[in-house]
Amino acid sequence: MSILTSQEFTRRMQAAQEAVRKNDLDAILVFSTECEPAAVRYFSDYWPSFETAAVLIPAEGEAALLIGPESLTYASSRSKLGRIIQLMDFRESSQPDYPGSTLPKWPDVIAQYKLKKIGLCGWYLFPYTMMMELARAMGGIENVVPADSMIRPIFMKKSAQEVECLKAAAKASEAGFKAILETIKPGMTESELCGIATAAMTAAGAETTGYPIWCCSGPNSDQAISRPTMRKVQCGEIVHFSIGAKVEGYSASIGRPVVLGHCPDEIRKFLQVGLDAANMTFDVMRAGVKSGDAARKVHDFIRAKGYGDAILYGPAHGCGQMECEYPFLETSSEYLLEAGMTFMQDMFLHRNGMGFRWEDGLLVKTSGPAEMLSSYGRQINIL
Amino acid sequence: MSILTSQEFTRRMQAAQEAVRKNDLDAILVFSTECEPAAVRYFSDYWPSFETAAVLIPAEGEAALLIGPESLTYASSRSKLGRIIQLMDFRESSQPDYPGSTLPKWPDVIAQYKLKKIGLCGWYLFPYTMMMELARAMGGIENVVPADSMIRPIFMKKSAQEVECLKAAAKASEAGFKAILETIKPGMTESELCGIATAAMTAAGAETTGYPIWCCSGPNSDQAISRPTMRKVQCGEIVHFSIGAKVEGYSASIGRPVVLGHCPDEIRKFLQVGLDAANMTFDVMRAGVKSGDAARKVHDFIRAKGYGDAILYGPAHGCGQMECEYPFLETSSEYLLEAGMTFMQDMFLHRNGMGFRWEDGLLVKTSGPAEMLSSYGRQINIL
Repeated sequence: MSILTSQEFTRRMQAAQEAVRKNDLDAILVFSTECEPAAVRYFSDYWPSFETAAVLIPAEGEAALLIGPESLTYASSRSKLGRIIQLMDFRESSQPDYPGSTLPKWPDVIAQYKLKKIGLCGWYLFPYTMMMELARAMGGIENVVPADSMIRPIFMKKSAQEVECLKAAAKASEAGFKAILETIKPGMTESELCGIATAAMTAAGAETTGYPIWCCSGPNSDQAISRPTMRKVQCGEIVHFSIGAKVEGYSASIGRPVVLGHCPDEIRKFLQVGLDAANMTFDVMRAGVKSGDAARKVHDFIRAKGYGDAILYGPAHGCGQMECEYPFLETSSEYLLEAGMTFMQDMFLHRNGMGFRWEDGLLVKTSGPAEMLSSYGRQINIL
Repeated sequence: MSILTSQEFTRRMQAAQEAVRKNDLDAILVFSTECEPAAVRYFSDYWPSFETAAVLIPAEGEAALLIGPESLTYASSRSKLGRIIQLMDFRESSQPDYPGSTLPKWPDVIAQYKLKKIGLCGWYLFPYTMMMELARAMGGIENVVPADSMIRPIFMKKSAQEVECLKAAAKASEAGFKAILETIKPGMTESELCGIATAAMTAAGAETTGYPIWCCSGPNSDQAISRPTMRKVQCGEIVHFSIGAKVEGYSASIGRPVVLGHCPDEIRKFLQVGLDAANMTFDVMRAGVKSGDAARKVHDFIRAKGYGDAILYGPAHGCGQMECEYPFLETSSEYLLEAGMTFMQDMFLHRNGMGFRWEDGLLVKTSGPAEMLSSYGRQINIL
């Protein structure tokens, strides 16, 4: 049983078409890749693998899913959009030949939709070579304008169904971390622990991981973004996990440090400051508050505790279909927090070659502190 | 214990620098993303997550790893290249602000390396916006030329260490498929089965999956490229798996159909034609043979058996760090097969709404048939 209904997809498409008209465009082209599948999935429920994809949203009439030469049966089985167009430009980057192919080209699509001026979402992802083909077909690059900011207001406040997906993803992520707490032993590799979490998350209803999850142990704990390695986890060191599940396209994450065996006081104190700052983030992120003010309060607290040098960024970033999506919550942020916005509270601190992350999903409420979307193991875990 | 030595990375860099000089360029810039990390990892052993990355290989002197604002500690711990430069252009596509950042820009890098003309690898991946910044810094787009074809000869024939990595990845992939055969039951979801395979592969030494692995059951079996779903596998239908592990950056895959319970004769016959064609692929892929001739022999066999309409592509594609890399083996291919080239034998057939894949790694030998890199469960699996 899916959470997302056809009505939800219709609502999104209508909102996007309204944005197209409001900005005096003929269409918006929404581009996605295997590792950044969110925008195409948001409008079509299809997400590419190996190949790339786009959704063409005209001001009026029927939108189309644009895919590569190998994805037709896959896309047909998933797409909420009935119209699917295959273009060679969306093939794999290894550029297979497909002898005898007679797929349409950009000029065919442009002519079919009578496009004079379009917006492009995924502006920072869109390949140069594809832009050249598109611009030529559009009669000039000036007829293709950045459009991410036109679509963002639709993404930024989540519908009830979207929140339900994020909660389901958070629950599956908790199953992943629970499996780690139940099985972790010194000598297991970082990659092995990530595999255990993946199996537990998919058994608990996840499609797959929400992003390339990781475990960082000992000297690797210093890394905010990482990939798991063959290093074996040991006693008396920080082992931190960023574990997240994907449910119906929505990506959660829970970040937790774990210490096996004896936990030195210095580490325990450091972890506690991070946890206190993480807890504070939920309290300060309230509807009507200026985003930068919320960020500064949390950073001020960390500085007052004497750990200002350990701050890397944050203390939160948007989440939805991408585990990390616009907007970031930074001390320079200007926007107001609104009920229905979802974030990952993301507290990464590091100093002296060690670090850790406390992270959980967060829903801004009409009043009061933010709602926590996951909470399993949200204490200092010394095993 | 790593398979790949520092000498291996030195050899690669020297070969690339020779290609730079041979093509009268000042440098080659090798670009990679989270889902296409191969080229950057090939030269640096670093592979990006969330952010993008590149390796700048000058004609003479020290190469540099180029990364985004959040990856420094991660990259420093992995990179075989000592020189690391952070550029804002390699940040996440959600475009965080990083207030107060003073990272260098393209003109700084161009000036430091005195670049007048460069080649670009990852030509079809490189984002438009980054190309505009780079071209401006280079004094014009004409000073940035496609360079994938200059570097390909280095990738295409694998060293002994690379073959060892591919064999290790194949072995871990077999552990993944073995775990599936041991646990699969009607009612398990496609995603759950992929999670079980992932846990078994990482326990067997994989870093992670080699690509977003999938399971396609019943009506979904028609899909050549896919993603696993919440569909529960059933008796009497084709359930096919594309399962692959990554070891030291090298990605393997094994493709297998499975039938639970009774297997109708029509399905059994279809699967056998695919397996015979897959076996034949190993036999025809010999050093000195023209690639297109090998492909035609396999497709002719399938047509002679009456299944010509079920052919989608293939019957093989290059493999290495990417599970699917240049060159494809297609009926239109012109290159000669050489000892040391590695492929995935990839036999996907589909008709009447059902399909399957037989796939295993393949090493072209000096003489005789190709060597099979994995073989577990390479028979019709009726459980």
